[in-house]
Formats: sequence, C-alpha cells, structure tokens
Amino acid sequence: MVPLEEIKTISVISKSKIIMLVIDGLGGLPDDKTGRTELETAHTPNLNQLAKISICGLIDPVSPGITPGSGPGHLALFGYDPLKFIIGRGVLEALGIGFELKKNDIAARGNFCTVDEKGLIADRRAGRITTDKCAELCKLLGRIKVDGVELFIKPVKEHRLMIVLRGKGLSAEVGDTDPQRLGVVPNRATAAKSQAKHTAHIVNSFIDKASIILARHHPANMLLLRGFSKLPEIPSMNEIYKLTPAAIAVYPMYKGLAKLIGMKIFNADGGIKEEIKILASCFDKHDFFYIHVKPADSAGEDGDFTRKVKIIEEVDSVLPQLLNLKPDVIVVTGDHSTPAMLKGHSWHPVPVLIYSQWCRPDEVNKFSECACISGGLGRLHATDIMPLAMANALKLTKFGA
Amino acid sequence: MVPLEEIKTISVISKSKIIMLVIDGLGGLPDDKTGRTELETAHTPNLNQLAKISICGLIDPVSPGITPGSGPGHLALFGYDPLKFIIGRGVLEALGIGFELKKNDIAARGNFCTVDEKGLIADRRAGRITTDKCAELCKLLGRIKVDGVELFIKPVKEHRLMIVLRGKGLSAEVGDTDPQRLGVVPNRATAAKSQAKHTAHIVNSFIDKASIILARHHPANMLLLRGFSKLPEIPSMNEIYKLTPAAIAVYPMYKGLAKLIGMKIFNADGGIKEEIKILASCFDKHDFFYIHVKPADSAGEDGDFTRKVKIIEEVDSVLPQLLNLKPDVIVVTGDHSTPAMLKGHSWHPVPVLIYSQWCRPDEVNKFSECACISGGLGRLHATDIMPLAMANALKLTKFGA
Repeated sequence: MVPLEEIKTISVISKSKIIMLVIDGLGGLPDDKTGRTELETAHTPNLNQLAKISICGLIDPVSPGITPGSGPGHLALFGYDPLKFIIGRGVLEALGIGFELKKNDIAARGNFCTVDEKGLIADRRAGRITTDKCAELCKLLGRIKVDGVELFIKPVKEHRLMIVLRGKGLSAEVGDTDPQRLGVVPNRATAAKSQAKHTAHIVNSFIDKASIILARHHPANMLLLRGFSKLPEIPSMNEIYKLTPAAIAVYPMYKGLAKLIGMKIFNADGGIKEEIKILASCFDKHDFFYIHVKPADSAGEDGDFTRKVKIIEEVDSVLPQLLNLKPDVIVVTGDHSTPAMLKGHSWHPVPVLIYSQWCRPDEVNKFSECACISGGLGRLHATDIMPLAMANALKLTKFGA
Repeated sequence: MVPLEEIKTISVISKSKIIMLVIDGLGGLPDDKTGRTELETAHTPNLNQLAKISICGLIDPVSPGITPGSGPGHLALFGYDPLKFIIGRGVLEALGIGFELKKNDIAARGNFCTVDEKGLIADRRAGRITTDKCAELCKLLGRIKVDGVELFIKPVKEHRLMIVLRGKGLSAEVGDTDPQRLGVVPNRATAAKSQAKHTAHIVNSFIDKASIILARHHPANMLLLRGFSKLPEIPSMNEIYKLTPAAIAVYPMYKGLAKLIGMKIFNADGGIKEEIKILASCFDKHDFFYIHVKPADSAGEDGDFTRKVKIIEEVDSVLPQLLNLKPDVIVVTGDHSTPAMLKGHSWHPVPVLIYSQWCRPDEVNKFSECACISGGLGRLHATDIMPLAMANALKLTKFGA
C-alpha cells in the first residue's frame, strides 16, 4: 500500500461525494443444501444492478487467512494499515460511549459475567443483563476507591462496560483478566512489562473490591476485563484525504473508531432505514459517508443464516434511496466475513463493489462472493479501497512526474 | 516485490532476448455508446493472436487507485519500486536531452509561459512556441550570469526547457515557481529546508534577469520552473539483471529515464515503424529492448478516442515484424492508463501480456482491459513484470536452497 504520507500529498478537495456502505460480516459460507452463501441466497436485485455498472472484487481486510476483529477490519477499509495502527479494545469502548479519553488514560473493556460457587466462569455475558441493570451496577462500582488512581466505570450495552484508569505512572501493558473461556477462574491482572506492575496492582485491587460488591448481584456476580490500552497516535481522515467525513452507525465501537479518525458521528438508533434517512439529512454537509449495518454480523455470530439473508435483503431494499442522492462514488462491502456456519468472524475475503462514472465496469452482474472472484478489481487488500474510492471521486492527483 | 538486492543474486547472463513494448497510456475507459475502450475498439488481430499464446493480466503501476506520472510508471515496469526511487522532473528533463548531469547539479524543468500586463499567468505553455523559438530564447537566457553558480539553459521541445545549476552549496529543496494554474503570478522560489536558501536566492536572481529579457518576446514573455532535483542513487539494470539493455524511444523524458538505469539509447524520430527498424538493426547487440510508443498517451491526453484507437492499430500492424525477430520473451503493456474520456493519466490498471515458450498460456484470446481480468497473471504490481520477464527468459535461478 501507498504510505498515508504520500496519499496526503496527492489528495485534493472537491465537491464529489463518496458513500461507503459497510455491511458488517457481509461475507459468508455456502449452506450445505443449496450451496449458496447468505449473500447468494438473498434476493438482491438492486445490489445486482449496481454490481453490473460497478467494478467488483474481493478484499482481504488484514491478509489472506487472517480473521480480523472489528477494529482492524474497519481501519483497513478507511485506508489505515491494521498491522501498523493498533487500537485497543478498551479505547474503542471508551470512544464509543463518548467518554473523553485523555492522552495517558488506560481504558479496558469489561464484561459482567456469572461465576459459580467455585468462582469458575459459567457465563461470560451474565445472561446478557439489560443495559439498565448494567448502568445500575456500574454506578455501584463507581464508588470504589483505589489509591493513586482515578477510576471511571461506565455502562456500554447489556453486559458490556468500560473502565478507565487515570493517574500517574500508568501503563497499558496489562494482560486480560478475561480468559475468554468457561469453567476457569478469571485471570489476575499481570504486567506484560515491568513498568506495568503498578497498574496491574491497581487493577487487581479494583477487581477484588468489585467482586465483593457484585457477589449479591447474580447473574452479574463478577466482571472480566480485557484490551487495556491507550489512545493511539493516528492521523485523521481529514489530514490524509482532505475529506469531511461522516459516520452513521448504531453501535458504540464503530462510532468510537470513526470518531478516532475524525469523522463526525451521527447516532442512529434504528435499522438501515433510519440510517439512510440520516444520510439524506446530512448529505449536503459532508463528502464522505460511512454507513454501518451491524445486524448482518450479529445474525452471523448467532449462526442465524436466514436472519442474515433477511438483513441483506433489507439493505438491498433501501439501496434505491441511497442511489437517489446521486453520490459520485459508492462502495459496498463488509469489514470481514461472518459466516453463519462458523458463528463468528472469519478469514474469508469480502465482496466489494465500487461504482462511479469512471470505474471501468467488469462483466460481474451479481453481487456475491462467487461472482466477485472474476471482477475487475481482482483480489486486493482492503487498504486499497480508500485510494480507489478517492481516485474514482477524482480526489487524487498524479503521483510523480 | 522481491528486493532488487535479491534479484541481483539470482540473475544470470544468457543469450535469450526480451522485448518490452510499452504503449504509453495504453489502458482506457469505455466509450459511452459502444461500451468498449480504445483497445477494445481497435482492430488488433496480431495482438489478439499473441495474447492467445501468452499469459495475460492487469498491472497497477504504483498501487490500486494511484495515478502514476510517467516516471513512476516506467520505473515500475523496469522493476524499480516507484515509491522508493523518486526521480525529480528536472533530472528527467536533463537526462532526456542528453545533458551530462554531475553528481551535485540541481536540475529543473522549465516552461516558457505567457503573463498578462499584470504579471498573471495567461498560458502556462506560451501557445506552445516552436522548438526553434525555444532554442533561440534559451540562447538569450544563457547569457545571464548569477554570482556563485554556473548556469545551463537548454531547450527541450516546444515551450519546454531545462535549467541546471552547478556550484558549491546547492540544494534541491527548492519549491516550484510554477503554480500550475492560471490567473496568478508565478511563485517566488522558496527554500523547503534552510540549507536551500542560497539556492532559492540564486533561482530568484536568475528569474528576475530572465523576465527582463523575455518581456519583449510575447507570448513567451516569462518562464516557470518546477521539479528541482539531483541525480538519485539508483542501480543500473545491468547491475540487477545482468542485462545489456537498449531503449528505443522518441521523447526525451523516456530516453532520459532509460539512460539513468543504464540502457543504451537509440533515438527514433518517426513512429513505431521506424522504431521497429531500429530494433531489427540492433537486435544482435542487446538482450533487452524497451520500445516506447508515445502517441497513444498523447491522443488520450487530447481526449481523442479515435486517434488513440488508430495508434493502437498501427502498433498491431507492425507486430509481425517484431515477432519475426524471434525474441524469447515479449512483454506488451503500458506505463499507465490514459483514457480519452479523462483526458489524462488515470489509476486504472493496465493490460499486460507476457509471451514466451514457457509462459503457461491462459484462456485469454483478446488483448483488452476486460479480457485480461481473467488472465493467468491476475492483477499484479507492475514491479512484478521484470522478474516474470526474466524468469520467462530463463535468466533467474532458484531463490534459496
């Protein structure tokens, strides 16, 4: 990929507008009986029509064979090398709920969980308690004091919370207390590097106090922390691409990531239909629009093939409204695959289409994993998508004489 | 790509011969009415027949989405990473006219231009004055003396000139005086780094004196400078590939670039027919031949779809003569796309075919943007072409034990 420093020197401001529609977990695997993936099963006349006048291909978010987390998957789509820009889970959660992280704050992602009488983890998500319950428990934990540090405990959604440590001499080099499996006791926080011993000690003090408070709040009778991290140094999309980008998303993590790279966040509460309404309402004020469709990934994670198909069909049904806005460039893709068959993220490359007046269409006339193999984009790194979108928007000048 | 240092260790000398035919700006975009690009519109029976027995694909000269200048586009074809080897425009112009640049010389590209009575740029090319007029004006400017520096002012072609500064303490870190737009005054030369202040001062002194002389030579009543640069450190093709390469080209810049990497230059004045004659005459003495076909790019830049089609057809018509020489390897490609629709270089990948006895042909039987998508080479970086050409010529031994 071209270094962002080089992109910076050739990007120009123009009136053209780019829409990047990210269907989270878009890629899938074929159903045993039909031999068709979720996307191939869905009835998607509008996506197929768009594919016909677009250039298509398949993208690897990180690298062939590598299953991306949501952070790396999205960073790559926005042109940031996910092997270079590492954003901790804790930081993402903090940004996602609008918590104003300071430069040396240490953030972690928390799960309320259920432990049995032996202290072994029985449910990593505490039966997915309500967000209200989560907020109530966070308030209780917020009363905990640990010497030498200021603590912030905030609810995220359902069983998810965020914790931030603010103080002197803190380090993010602390191992997860979440073992990410059942039937074992939570890990003690340990220092991955010696300068993190002080921080690990603080984390363990906090957890000890929290576990006493939570004991009587079954199923949320314990908590697990992971992804201790600090704000990374990352240039904004405006610095690199000279764009005024907007993000339309429901889930905190995606909004957090978008905010981190300088997008203006538009909060959506409903589904894709509401997101398209928001898009229309802010279309005049921005030149890049990231629209995030979360439920396709959630359905994949739940192993619900049929629900994922329906969500893709719902996206297809709103596509005409998006096209009516007449954006100069449209990118439709996903941040990774989430095959219902695997009930989780996977390494499979993700279909992508890029439409513009200048895209040089190929012969692909269906938007699917299989059809995109023979697309004009070939198989490429997800980090190539932004330069291609920018080029198609005529927002990149010549490199070299 | 494999580092050039590694290629060096596995390249071997042999009798086999490689021809690389570069149709400048080859790639295009489909015509609105026919849906066919310039190459797809052209009647090219010989190229199609060659594609049938070749392996085909699409190359990205720099990276997907990046529109290459001619320098980066060509360097990549010769196997040099264009993001690593940066050749300034001034250096290219100097080399192109056969000016013997010394190690610390500073070269710049100049344009004679027209300024109005307020000094605002009205025509960046001074109505494309004749090359004779350009030579006459350069001779006049050659009389200018500036303390502490030796100046060389040479005509290139039409409104284009080259200026070289030779002396102690000079730096290439000087900004362009050419603002590359109309209706503004030319920039003063400024130092991008403090060590370049002396050089910027010299440049401004020269321009002040030149503007007095040029005042009475409307439309060439001013000059603009850009691309201040020094010779880069770049290994020759002989060092890397152990080749004895020859370049057959008309336009100065391409000859300059070829010379920089150690090719022997054969000057052509006419079109592709003359170039093929030169090729035949020197075929015994070299083992790599770069043939440059400029007019396809010029037609694309002029937005002349039909002329570009005709030039591609002309290239097709001389192909049998090239094949008669029985080269072991033939590469046909371009250094970038120049769609007539865009009237300029573009980011679109460029069709490529590699013919040899050992090429492993695919099912492509037409040389076109669309057909090459399904070629056996897939979509690859232009820097992969030289290793592939060398391999097909059996000039690369095994890497590793």
